[in-house]
This record gives sequence, C-alpha cells and structure tokens, in this order.
Amino acid sequence: MRVDGQPRRTLWPAATCDAVFVIDQRQLPHRLAIESLGNVEAVFVAIRDMWVRGAPLIGATAAFGLALQARRDAGDDALRAAAQRLGSARPTAVNLAWALQRMLQRLLPLPPAARADAAWREAATLADEDVATNQAIGRHGLQLLAALRPRSGEVLNVLTHCNAGWLATVDWGTALAPVYQAQAAGLKLHVWVDETRPRNQGASLTAWELAQQGVPHTLIADNAGGHLMQRGQVDAVIVGCDRVAANGDVCNKIGTYLKALAARDNGVPFYVAMPLSTLDLSLRDGLHIPIEERSAREVTHIAGRTAAGDWAEVRLAPHGCAAANPAFDVTPAALVSALVTERGVIAARSEDIAALAAATP
Amino acid sequence: MRVDGQPRRTLWPAATCDAVFVIDQRQLPHRLAIESLGNVEAVFVAIRDMWVRGAPLIGATAAFGLALQARRDAGDDALRAAAQRLGSARPTAVNLAWALQRMLQRLLPLPPAARADAAWREAATLADEDVATNQAIGRHGLQLLAALRPRSGEVLNVLTHCNAGWLATVDWGTALAPVYQAQAAGLKLHVWVDETRPRNQGASLTAWELAQQGVPHTLIADNAGGHLMQRGQVDAVIVGCDRVAANGDVCNKIGTYLKALAARDNGVPFYVAMPLSTLDLSLRDGLHIPIEERSAREVTHIAGRTAAGDWAEVRLAPHGCAAANPAFDVTPAALVSALVTERGVIAARSEDIAALAAATP
Repeated sequence: MRVDGQPRRTLWPAATCDAVFVIDQRQLPHRLAIESLGNVEAVFVAIRDMWVRGAPLIGATAAFGLALQARRDAGDDALRAAAQRLGSARPTAVNLAWALQRMLQRLLPLPPAARADAAWREAATLADEDVATNQAIGRHGLQLLAALRPRSGEVLNVLTHCNAGWLATVDWGTALAPVYQAQAAGLKLHVWVDETRPRNQGASLTAWELAQQGVPHTLIADNAGGHLMQRGQVDAVIVGCDRVAANGDVCNKIGTYLKALAARDNGVPFYVAMPLSTLDLSLRDGLHIPIEERSAREVTHIAGRTAAGDWAEVRLAPHGCAAANPAFDVTPAALVSALVTERGVIAARSEDIAALAAATP
Repeated sequence: MRVDGQPRRTLWPAATCDAVFVIDQRQLPHRLAIESLGNVEAVFVAIRDMWVRGAPLIGATAAFGLALQARRDAGDDALRAAAQRLGSARPTAVNLAWALQRMLQRLLPLPPAARADAAWREAATLADEDVATNQAIGRHGLQLLAALRPRSGEVLNVLTHCNAGWLATVDWGTALAPVYQAQAAGLKLHVWVDETRPRNQGASLTAWELAQQGVPHTLIADNAGGHLMQRGQVDAVIVGCDRVAANGDVCNKIGTYLKALAARDNGVPFYVAMPLSTLDLSLRDGLHIPIEERSAREVTHIAGRTAAGDWAEVRLAPHGCAAANPAFDVTPAALVSALVTERGVIAARSEDIAALAAATP
C-alpha cells in the first residue's frame, strides 16, 4: 500500500539482517514513526505494547523475533525460550503461536550453524506469504462485493470494525484487501469506519490508511452501525479475525459480535476475512478462546493531539473509576455469512472449514 | 440524590424567581459547575449545547425558560415565540415539546398579568412531578430487579447505556431510579456503565453519579456489553428513552439498539424506563422519529483532564477526517421486555400502551 504516495510494507528486514523495521502504530494517525527492533525483547515489547497489532502482523513480527534470536544463539533451548517469550506477548490471536510454531518446526531439525540464515529466510518467506494470502483474500472478497447492489444510491457502503487493513498485516490487509481491490477495479464504494473503542484502531489506523489510499470513508462511533443498517446505509460488513474455531465461531475485536447481530437483524451480509493461519482446529467452538483483558486505563483515559500539535493524554472518567476492558469477543458462526480465505469463500460451518483445511497443502 | 453527601436536584429556581440554576454537565466528572440561566436565550443555549441533557431534564429546563419569558413579556406572541425557540434546541426528545405545550396550555387562557406567577408555579410543579414520576418508576422497576436471580455469583448485574440517571432528570433518574431504590432496599447490585460514545455520558455522568451515591459500578466500552452478556455477566439491561412511539418502538441514545439485540440473543431482559411524557402517540412506529445529527467533531475530538489537572481537547482521527454522528437510534418494540412507567410496568405493545395512556388522568 501507499504512504504519501510511496509503496510500503508495515514490516521489513534491515539489509544487514540484524534488525527488523516496524511502524510504531501507537503514534498514528499523527506521526509515521518507524522503529528498528534488534532483539527478542524489543520484538516482545513491540507486540505486547501494540506498536504492531493485527493477527497477521504480530505473527510475522514474531517470526523475525525468532530470526533475531537465531543470530545470537540458535540452540534448541534458546530458540524455544524465545518462542515462549514472544508467544506470551498477546494471548488471543492464534497467528502468533502459528508463526512461532512454524519457525521452530523449520529450524530445530537443522544443524545449529545453519539456523540463523534459515530463520531469516523463513521469516521473510512468511512475510511474503502473508502478502500473497491477503491479495488472494482480496480477490475472493472482491467477487462478493461486486455481486452486491447498493441499497441506496450508486455507491456500495461497507462497514468495518477495528483495523484489519494494511496496518494489521504485512501488506494489503485482510478485511480491507477486498476494498482495495474493489477500488482498483473501479467499483464505487465508501467505507463506514467504526472508531473501535477503547483503543480506537478505526479512528487512528483504518481512517488513516483509507485516506492514504484515497478510499472514501466516514468515521462513526461504534454505537452508530446498527442505526445505519436499519436505515439501509450499509450493504456489507467486513471484518478480520484473531482466531476462528473449527465450527466457524469468530474471535475478533470487542464489539464485532454486536455488529454481526445488527447485520443479521437487517439482512446485511457479514463477511469475515480469514487467512487460514487464523484457524484453530484444536478448538471445537469459540466458547473457550482466551479473551485478553487489557488495562482499565485504555477505557478511562485517551491520548491524541491538541490543537497546538502537542501529544496529550486526558482522563474521561471520574478519578479512580473502575473499568473492565475485554479486548475481544466471539461472534457465533450462525451470524457469519461467509469466511473469505486465501483459498476461496466458504460457509462458516464445521464441514466446509474441515474440507478446506484438509485440502490446504 | 446526593452530591458530596448533600441532597441536591439538578435544577432549581432562584428564590428571587428571576433565574433557574442548572449544572453545566459538560464539565462533569471533573468539576461541579453551577450556572444561573436568566432568560430564554440562556436556556436555549444550555439545552442546545447540552449543559443540561436527558429528556426529562430538558423538558423541565425549557418550562422554566418559558417562565422566565413570562416575567418579561407574557403576551401570546412572545410566549409562542419563546416556545418555538426553546423547542428547536433539540429535535429528538419529545419531552421538550410536551413540556412547552403544557406550559402554553396552562398560560394562554390566563389574562397576561396573571401569567408570570402562574408560569413560575407551573414550571416548579412540572419539576416536582418529574421527581414523583421518577420515584414511581423506581418503585416499579425495583420489583422487576428484585424478581431476577443473578446468573453468576450473588450480585445482580445491571447494564445501562448513556445517562438516564439523576442527571438526566430533576431527581432520581429514570433508568437509574430502580437501581437507587434497589440499593436503598438492600439488594446487592453492580452496574455496568457503557461509556456511550461519542459524548461519553456514561463515563462522565453515570459513573460520576453512581459513585456519588455509592453504587458499585464498572465502566466499559460500548463494544463490551455483548461479550459480557454472552458470558452471563449481565442480568438485566435498563435504559431511558427520548421518545416512544405508539407501538412501543423506543428512540434512545445511539447504540441502544445494539444492546437490545445482544440482550435478546442472550435471554437477558431489556427494560426501558419511560415516563409517560416520553410517549408520542402521534407516531405509529419509530421509523419516522427525527434523528438528530450532531457535529462530526464529537467523534473526531475529545476533551478531558490532563494529569496536571488542565482541560484539554485532543484530536483522535486523521486531520480532516469525515465523521457521521447520529445521536439516537430506534429499538424495535419486539426487543423490549417491558416499559417501566410511573403507572406500572407494561408490555411494549400498542394495546397496552394505548390502555395505559387512556387511563392516565
């Protein structure tokens, strides 16, 4: 995707193979801050503190974290310890565990001396594959969008929650890949951007990246989506996911479930963009997906730019007010119109998911 | 209700009958700012700019606005013009029109010389009646709460959206009146407080007034309620309303509809506290209730207190980002478990509503 007109990924290795570059997304939309991560601990902090976020991107970043470890000490114990540390940074997205597992499976059978180079190549491959995966999701999702007719006017209105765009992946995004492909194909469309409290990934990230790509969009409070659907102003909902259970239950950013309920109530299709790396066949359903509980301060305080251009954090709630902050929820498969994967569009049903997973090389 | 332990109303007339005192609620939870409103224009601004908000409170405030007008010029034209001006301050809540209509009906038949005193008495009566109405809603709502059994643990968990508490009325509140009565009756309960974006009435007002009354509560993002219901952590939802149609469709703060959908999906009762002044029998259903579209800036910017104690407004979205801001939505009657009125609890059905309205003196 483009930033200030220049093509960019969200993650790229240093030419010297001793660091990986990421965008500190906490500073968006106000500043494009590029940071270099040089060791496992730096990668751990970047994932835990959400410099990088989005299931695919944290998987790819963690893979480079292991590659950085392999340059220092590629022994079995050191790699396993690094994988454990990195895997503990965020509990909900399964891509993190998936990427680390894939790296270990690739590296541990090799002689230690060969591991550093192999790790770097594998992490780069994993990142490239994420790009290809998202492009494929975009192609399949575009077919779904192209088949819809706008309920009002001539522009297709797509609602998305959180950020499952370019910034959540290495490139293209998952939920937004179909939007970008639709734009390229000349489809007239407009995106309703849920601000996505409490971390406001919609307001700060999705709105920013859509503006960078020139996609028409309007920011809304998370509360507004149901009303817009009732008034025929939403033609489709597309979201990403952090983990999908074998039965098609979808774990995604808190609030996704409410939008899925409203979509069903108003006959609006509800699509989930799902790279197969997000599938967790070990879970029969979504009931037992661990839900990350984040800091109360994310709810009681908020940061942004003042008119003078300064960064400021303000308190919104009474001093000492208790707050709960579950970061994800589970949308039952019955509310999901389709899963858009890199291998095609399938129903959110055990049989279809199992068949697709079995057919995947 | 109590503020710093002292009983207070949200609105009270000056002993000199030349002003009405209100709390500038925009400054809560950070500061209790009491303002004196001395003429129609001051009252208009206080309603339009949401120093006071909440359907019952804006009705009572507008009534005092007309009483202030009657002191200056109590002629038919002057009163009608003042009523029109005050009625245009907010478009959605029907109490505003109801209160102004009631004042005009009381005053216009009187000789002009008698109107100033009568207007002041009528506004005071209307405010007193609001208090009595809310106490009655509280008693009826308490019966509903007392009949519920907590799904988990021993504490009844009630979720509320926006602020339909003391601060939305002259005293007691509508949706929170049953909560305060339950507290007084020794029922163990805890309130989940939706922060209620974009104006954050939950975070700034509901959390503040519950804390002042010592009611246990936890602030949550609006996105979290569905998840909490799925996990059995909500025993009832109680909200207020800005206008109810003849068929029981409920217009209330944007996002209410999403909570009603989640309540139905999880078998959680969804109660609407409705003073009869909020009923608009002229509307067959909620489809045509005018929905106020407020400033985009309420979505893109937010204000609060810095750690240093300063007031600051920060921008959350990219510079120039478009935002839509519908302030209310309509919850279909089918999602409403019961309407809690000052005359008892009824089903959200045309027949029951018509019968209650007909029986009301």
